[in-house]
Amino acid sequence: MPHDLLLRNVRVMGGEATDLLVRDGRIAAIGPAPEAPGVPVEEGGGALLIPGLVEGHTHLDKSLWGMGWRPHPAGPGLTDKIEAERRLRAEGGIDPARQSARLLVQALRMGTTHIRTHVDIDDVAGLEGLEGVMATRAAHAGAMEVEIVAFPQSGVMIRPGVAGLMEAAMRMGADVVGGLDPCDIDRDPRGHLDVVFGLAERFGKPVDIHLHEAGLLGAFSLELILERTRALGMAGQVTVSHAFCLGDPDPAVVRPLLEAVAELDVAIATTAPASRPVPPVARLRAMGIRVCGGSDGVRDTWTPYGTADMLERAMLIGLRNNLRRDDEMEMALDLCTHGGASVLRLEGYGLNPGCHADLVLVDAETPAEAVAAHPPRRLVVKRGRVVARDGVALVEAP
Amino acid sequence: MPHDLLLRNVRVMGGEATDLLVRDGRIAAIGPAPEAPGVPVEEGGGALLIPGLVEGHTHLDKSLWGMGWRPHPAGPGLTDKIEAERRLRAEGGIDPARQSARLLVQALRMGTTHIRTHVDIDDVAGLEGLEGVMATRAAHAGAMEVEIVAFPQSGVMIRPGVAGLMEAAMRMGADVVGGLDPCDIDRDPRGHLDVVFGLAERFGKPVDIHLHEAGLLGAFSLELILERTRALGMAGQVTVSHAFCLGDPDPAVVRPLLEAVAELDVAIATTAPASRPVPPVARLRAMGIRVCGGSDGVRDTWTPYGTADMLERAMLIGLRNNLRRDDEMEMALDLCTHGGASVLRLEGYGLNPGCHADLVLVDAETPAEAVAAHPPRRLVVKRGRVVARDGVALVEAP
Repeated sequence: MPHDLLLRNVRVMGGEATDLLVRDGRIAAIGPAPEAPGVPVEEGGGALLIPGLVEGHTHLDKSLWGMGWRPHPAGPGLTDKIEAERRLRAEGGIDPARQSARLLVQALRMGTTHIRTHVDIDDVAGLEGLEGVMATRAAHAGAMEVEIVAFPQSGVMIRPGVAGLMEAAMRMGADVVGGLDPCDIDRDPRGHLDVVFGLAERFGKPVDIHLHEAGLLGAFSLELILERTRALGMAGQVTVSHAFCLGDPDPAVVRPLLEAVAELDVAIATTAPASRPVPPVARLRAMGIRVCGGSDGVRDTWTPYGTADMLERAMLIGLRNNLRRDDEMEMALDLCTHGGASVLRLEGYGLNPGCHADLVLVDAETPAEAVAAHPPRRLVVKRGRVVARDGVALVEAP
Repeated sequence: MPHDLLLRNVRVMGGEATDLLVRDGRIAAIGPAPEAPGVPVEEGGGALLIPGLVEGHTHLDKSLWGMGWRPHPAGPGLTDKIEAERRLRAEGGIDPARQSARLLVQALRMGTTHIRTHVDIDDVAGLEGLEGVMATRAAHAGAMEVEIVAFPQSGVMIRPGVAGLMEAAMRMGADVVGGLDPCDIDRDPRGHLDVVFGLAERFGKPVDIHLHEAGLLGAFSLELILERTRALGMAGQVTVSHAFCLGDPDPAVVRPLLEAVAELDVAIATTAPASRPVPPVARLRAMGIRVCGGSDGVRDTWTPYGTADMLERAMLIGLRNNLRRDDEMEMALDLCTHGGASVLRLEGYGLNPGCHADLVLVDAETPAEAVAAHPPRRLVVKRGRVVARDGVALVEAP
């Protein structure tokens, strides 16, 4: 159902107070507006208006959100975490449909209007995660847009059957082919990337690869990804998530990688973890590289942290990258709005007339203050429909 | 005025629900309690009870809190920030009494019951900052305990007159002698430390030195601090704030420093910045070193970030130090409670009968969840008196 709405007295990206009229779910006009008969009115109270927040990297299928506090079960390494998750998965209780809906509603009340989620495809979960998240996506289609990455969390080459499951996932409707640390996990980068890029070619879908590998090992894997992107003519179709190797202190390692990333229009998703090297976002942006922000897992077996709040994430990106000037903080916010839209290739995103009315009202003076203070959201609007008010979702979570 | 209070249905550090009786501002009993005539009752709703949060390192005198959003004015270096601050100070408008009261009330509503604040003593501000913060301390004596460090923010040796002002500050009632980067700022570590430790000896007060210097330079300055601590018999009387040099990746640099820090009972204050090396808190704690957490500046000319929320700080410490297990997250919280109390040498701090009733109620299942979720505080109690409820301070800010 298309929605009309008149937002009164809002400050678009911190500008002068004005009104914003929504017709049929799109921004119709920005400027002083007379009452329009039959159009619901929301008083904005002079709050800051920003576009809907874009979650560029999360894992909706396996959050423990709403399941009570669970002590963190895993050891320090990547493999410890994979094994702990497989064990807990096998024990049951983490229903992907229910859990993805709970986390989606939490994200929505914090102002997120679009999500790219990686969904585990492995020999324990099979396609259950995908089925669950697809059910959640269908149930909340009017309130949130969800893009699904089929993600081989436990590896492909070392887990017989996973390559077939990945293919089945793409046939079922996954939007993006996922991948993971071609060296560290699968011990066979060529084999891993053959499967990932093979599926991408066959289904005509983009790629988003988790690359935790740091230093020279990560640089090697990234080179392999870049070589394939070039050879297959997939410029603009590949995202690398985390890309810790781009945070290496050695410029001789990083410079050529960044140049190729820019040339091949490879996108980078960063969660800006405080305890790992991270891609220097200001430098990436200056080179024209598409960059988005992401929460990564929220309260799952990987991490006990996370609030699914992309304004808090913008703050964490800002703190990690030492962004202090207003223009720098606006960039941190941009990674979680327009940057995300550029990675997800969203159509009609933004605050111009004609764009979809995906809008967030925040009690802050400027975009920079929204990042620093990240207060509860005053209003969240999805395609012209109010979906959260004063920090409370108007959509029910299971 | 001594306060009585009966807290019903609270879970002390996440234990079973019980009651807590306060008499004359101290915890009288923990356990099922009958109604006590004339004693006010607060229903805790099964919330988590933790001790009052301790802010171990902040700058109350120069926050811009409540002054509207100010674009960040400073360049990237330490000297840029010092100069920008001096310029803005000289232009006026940052009233230390008003600003310290505003930030104190913000901290209070987030559950902080004790603050160590560094107060600028320099040739621009003179003793104004100290006078302002002392006025705030007096005005809010019943709601917050404030310890004041006389802090030569712009240097001592390079600013004629500052040594004399530091002495005047100690005479006026500052509790701790501050210092700052003996090499980087003053270019004369011996001269700087002569003044700082000279005042400490003369006034019989402890020392708290900002040490941003990283790597071998910081290690050198820390060695000088440790040598003086030993020579003057000041074991247990010295805090080093930031101590980025302890986050150096070279164990040959860090190990001997940590051993001397532990031996001389030198305390470390960390704000766990995401973009700098940091002292590895778990290792420090395992060595028995006293460690506290701090916000550092909150929305001032140094940084646009900060909320004065020590539960959010515990999360940032956890993220920076990659603390994921519950016992590790409890340690992060401990740095912002008992750890702070050990650095500030607080008498009667804690949750045992006889302790001062400085208490915080949080809607969380466990201490670890309080760190991860850091929700608004349900109730803040200072010496038995309710000073904030549902995130709103009951003490007025100017």
